[in-house]
Amino acid sequence: MPKSKEIETFPNPRAGRDYEIGFEAPEFTCLCPKTGQPDFATIRIRYTPDQKCIELKSLKLYLWSFRDEGAFHEAVTNRILDDLVGAVDPRWMLVEGDFYVRGGIKTIVRAEHRKA
Amino acid sequence: MPKSKEIETFPNPRAGRDYEIGFEAPEFTCLCPKTGQPDFATIRIRYTPDQKCIELKSLKLYLWSFRDEGAFHEAVTNRILDDLVGAVDPRWMLVEGDFYVRGGIKTIVRAEHRKA
Amino acid sequence: MPKSKEIETFPNPRAGRDYEIGFEAPEFTCLCPKTGQPDFATIRIRYTPDQKCIELKSLKLYLWSFRDEGAFHEAVTNRILDDLVGAVDPRWMLVEGDFYVRGGIKTIVRAEHRKA
Amino acid sequence: MPKSKEIETFPNPRAGRDYEIGFEAPEFTCLCPKTGQPDFATIRIRYTPDQKCIELKSLKLYLWSFRDEGAFHEAVTNRILDDLVGAVDPRWMLVEGDFYVRGGIKTIVRAEHRKA
Amino acid sequence: MPKSKEIETFPNPRAGRDYEIGFEAPEFTCLCPKTGQPDFATIRIRYTPDQKCIELKSLKLYLWSFRDEGAFHEAVTNRILDDLVGAVDPRWMLVEGDFYVRGGIKTIVRAEHRKA
Amino acid sequence: MPKSKEIETFPNPRAGRDYEIGFEAPEFTCLCPKTGQPDFATIRIRYTPDQKCIELKSLKLYLWSFRDEGAFHEAVTNRILDDLVGAVDPRWMLVEGDFYVRGGIKTIVRAEHRKA
Amino acid sequence: MPKSKEIETFPNPRAGRDYEIGFEAPEFTCLCPKTGQPDFATIRIRYTPDQKCIELKSLKLYLWSFRDEGAFHEAVTNRILDDLVGAVDPRWMLVEGDFYVRGGIKTIVRAEHRKA
Amino acid sequence: MPKSKEIETFPNPRAGRDYEIGFEAPEFTCLCPKTGQPDFATIRIRYTPDQKCIELKSLKLYLWSFRDEGAFHEAVTNRILDDLVGAVDPRWMLVEGDFYVRGGIKTIVRAEHRKA
Amino acid sequence: MPKSKEIETFPNPRAGRDYEIGFEAPEFTCLCPKTGQPDFATIRIRYTPDQKCIELKSLKLYLWSFRDEGAFHEAVTNRILDDLVGAVDPRWMLVEGDFYVRGGIKTIVRAEHRKA
Amino acid sequence: MPKSKEIETFPNPRAGRDYEIGFEAPEFTCLCPKTGQPDFATIRIRYTPDQKCIELKSLKLYLWSFRDEGAFHEAVTNRILDDLVGAVDPRWMLVEGDFYVRGGIKTIVRAEHRKA
Repeated sequence: MPKSKEIETFPNPRAGRDYEIGFEAPEFTCLCPKTGQPDFATIRIRYTPDQKCIELKSLKLYLWSFRDEGAFHEAVTNRILDDLVGAVDPRWMLVEGDFYVRGGIKTIVRAEHRKA
Repeated sequence: MPKSKEIETFPNPRAGRDYEIGFEAPEFTCLCPKTGQPDFATIRIRYTPDQKCIELKSLKLYLWSFRDEGAFHEAVTNRILDDLVGAVDPRWMLVEGDFYVRGGIKTIVRAEHRKA
Repeated sequence: MPKSKEIETFPNPRAGRDYEIGFEAPEFTCLCPKTGQPDFATIRIRYTPDQKCIELKSLKLYLWSFRDEGAFHEAVTNRILDDLVGAVDPRWMLVEGDFYVRGGIKTIVRAEHRKA
Repeated sequence: MPKSKEIETFPNPRAGRDYEIGFEAPEFTCLCPKTGQPDFATIRIRYTPDQKCIELKSLKLYLWSFRDEGAFHEAVTNRILDDLVGAVDPRWMLVEGDFYVRGGIKTIVRAEHRKA
Repeated sequence: MPKSKEIETFPNPRAGRDYEIGFEAPEFTCLCPKTGQPDFATIRIRYTPDQKCIELKSLKLYLWSFRDEGAFHEAVTNRILDDLVGAVDPRWMLVEGDFYVRGGIKTIVRAEHRKA
Repeated sequence: MPKSKEIETFPNPRAGRDYEIGFEAPEFTCLCPKTGQPDFATIRIRYTPDQKCIELKSLKLYLWSFRDEGAFHEAVTNRILDDLVGAVDPRWMLVEGDFYVRGGIKTIVRAEHRKA
Repeated sequence: MPKSKEIETFPNPRAGRDYEIGFEAPEFTCLCPKTGQPDFATIRIRYTPDQKCIELKSLKLYLWSFRDEGAFHEAVTNRILDDLVGAVDPRWMLVEGDFYVRGGIKTIVRAEHRKA
Repeated sequence: MPKSKEIETFPNPRAGRDYEIGFEAPEFTCLCPKTGQPDFATIRIRYTPDQKCIELKSLKLYLWSFRDEGAFHEAVTNRILDDLVGAVDPRWMLVEGDFYVRGGIKTIVRAEHRKA
Repeated sequence: MPKSKEIETFPNPRAGRDYEIGFEAPEFTCLCPKTGQPDFATIRIRYTPDQKCIELKSLKLYLWSFRDEGAFHEAVTNRILDDLVGAVDPRWMLVEGDFYVRGGIKTIVRAEHRKA
Repeated sequence: MPKSKEIETFPNPRAGRDYEIGFEAPEFTCLCPKTGQPDFATIRIRYTPDQKCIELKSLKLYLWSFRDEGAFHEAVTNRILDDLVGAVDPRWMLVEGDFYVRGGIKTIVRAEHRKA
């Protein structure tokens, strides 16, 4: 399995327009930092690109790279947002981590970034 | 069964950002104060943390602690909101108690808190 | 069958807060004033209590009391709203009458009250 | 409201063929014999006609005629089957009474008749 | 089949209040003006009455009256809105024509009127 | 609108095999023989062809041809089966007429033919 | 809360016929014998009565009586079946325990009894 | 297969009113410019016409014309918007390209145009 | 786009057992032989392998190879079954072609093969 | 994370009865042996125990143990069946591996064991 953390980009093909791109990735897994046990989530991303767009295959590899890492729900959702914002500097971005039931409780974390 | 009412917290891992955490807990039960009969509900919580986040396992124990207590629908939903606000002092929080049918009628109570 | 039109109330347990209580009652029936034939509906109620809350069992009896009364869709939905507003004087209330198909057409009436 | 218990019939238009007719009637209500309180159900009927078919409008009136009668779930479902079998003498008939939640429990009764 | 284009009305039973009435009529059919072939749609209507309400049976007959008329999707949705506005002079009205697939494409037209 | 009752056929492309072809046609309308009022249904057809298959466009025209004809639910479903059996002489065929609510009751008629 | 384990019965109103009665009870909770933690389930029951039927209110009380008892998924489902069979001696009975997620896995147990 | 890129129009039948027309076209396919492999999407269009409306059949042919063209998700959604805006000069238009899963990730692109 | 019609296989990893493999491929398109217009379908395959299994990537390429070919619904479903049976000689196989609406009618073709 | 392949068992609490236990585990992941890329699936298990039952926590650990192993869809589903059969020697068992989309195609493998 490739383990790149590099998010590749390509130039926004319609840079003058405010439009939205959305991804839904139901195949996300990481490890619980306390117990080492696997966690699973669907990651949803929506953003309005500025000059750069996220390349789909590198996004897949980026999300796979969490497979062997310890990550709390709240922290990992914010980190994905920070990493993607760092890579494509969007006008707006929303990341949602929708995690499977633990202890009879389902958790969803939603974090948003808006360009100053 | 542990009976702690203590909601444990951990420091917000991304305290500078306004983001949202949501929980859905379908395994809530308490007793009707008038009849002593069991009531059942799904409790939904959404909040924007300030300095502290709710620790998931202690939330589970907190919700379980109502199992043997008498509690009206309207009062218990507000009390859960008050207890959680007291524990993590969030920027915003919403608690929804979605109760099972009684007398052919389903009841949902939604209470919200916003930091001054 | 009890035939009381009295809606009983109890003191709002969290009177200082703007929160919402919702009921869904799928077991409503009345009679068509023109034909005498039965009509059926789901009645949905949402309100923000001020000093008083609606007692659930009396709400059940109140809704049952329409069983032998003639009532047009538009009029009965507004009347339920007026009766409940009269009983608990809420900050806000919405009543929705969702009636079964008649003549191939489904009818929904939604009426709202906001305290001056 | 007409209160006829008479189920009218018309001659089976394709009497030589084994085929099935189904009805779904979500607007059924009767009274609980113990408490006098209203009960609600969806009545589903499927049958293979022999010489006679059930006329739809008289079925509607027949089902409405239970509105003011006391009837237990198990008994009323069997009685509807017996009445309809008596009226059209079908090759096969199934009646299903799908009753609303009482005491947190939903009840479905299914009774079947097959011509000797 | 009655062919009246007359929409009958009755006085708004709660004329002082801004409330909403909705209808869903899945049994609408007209003819394509170009090919003469049948078109089918669900017509949805929502409105806030002023002095008059739409009588349900005359609405049924009004919608049936399009059965043998040629009508384009965009034009017929607007015409229904104009006819109903002419009949009841509402505070607000929305008409939605939700047409079946033609050429692999589903069409929905939504037109709105607001009293000056 | 073409008004042909002719169901065109084409040779079964795989005549040696027992396989099934299914159609779902939600755009069926005819008239009630008693009242002249429109009825609507979804017609579902499943069959195992022998030497001939039903040509899709002629099926569409055949179903449209009922638009101005009076037809009871039970009779019209059996007649569609008889007409299609007459046209393609299948090994097996099932026709289901799934009619819209009349008098608060939904009707489904299912008729089957099996080659001797 | 009443704590009776007694399942009350009433005489089968149509004892000569093989028919089916079904219950769905989503408000079941017991305790895990290993950890003492609450478990939740929906209990579904279907049976063909012989001479006796299950009285609904006593069924509710019977199911509530597990609230403070330790019970493994497989054992409790079989025990409910044994208790109900003991009470009404049915011709056939099926009990399904549909338990909430534990350790990321949902469990359903289905046990059946047929009179010799 | 016709290969016209021409979008035909017809005069807005109710040009003075701000209303909305929506299309859903689930039969869109193009080719991936990098790999030459087919991509599939549902294209959804909503717009408020000004003087001209989109003719449905020409829209079908226009969408089919992408079948043998290479087109990235982000670029093709914006290009459809630009082409349709060029053809009918609407007051407002939204185009949504809802693409099938690639690399375990589903992509949706939404682009909007508003007349100056 | 690769245009291979070759279905590659691999040895059944559990050849001694009767088990079932199922595929659902919603991205199938071909051309109508009469009009040259595109058709779309979901192809579903279920089979019990004997000595050989279908390799997934070659199945994808095989299904893509119909993109520029004329194919009637009934014929193409049977041909896919024949081609796959020829490639892996299964104990049993079912192919279902679930085609999009044409002329207001949806078509599903299901063909089955069982080893002699 | 524990990496045990040991499936623990407990004595069947109702060994004399033929009943069924079902598990649904949506959190399964392994690696593709050809590409090293992650695969995801929901594993469903149903079985009739003989003398032994599967202990839930050890099942969770067993399924997690595939996380770093290469495994083809067909092989891994059969292997899980073989491992579980080896551990509890059931009267009957069914294992279903329901894998996420790869190459636009979803795969489901179902394998069954019946005690001789």
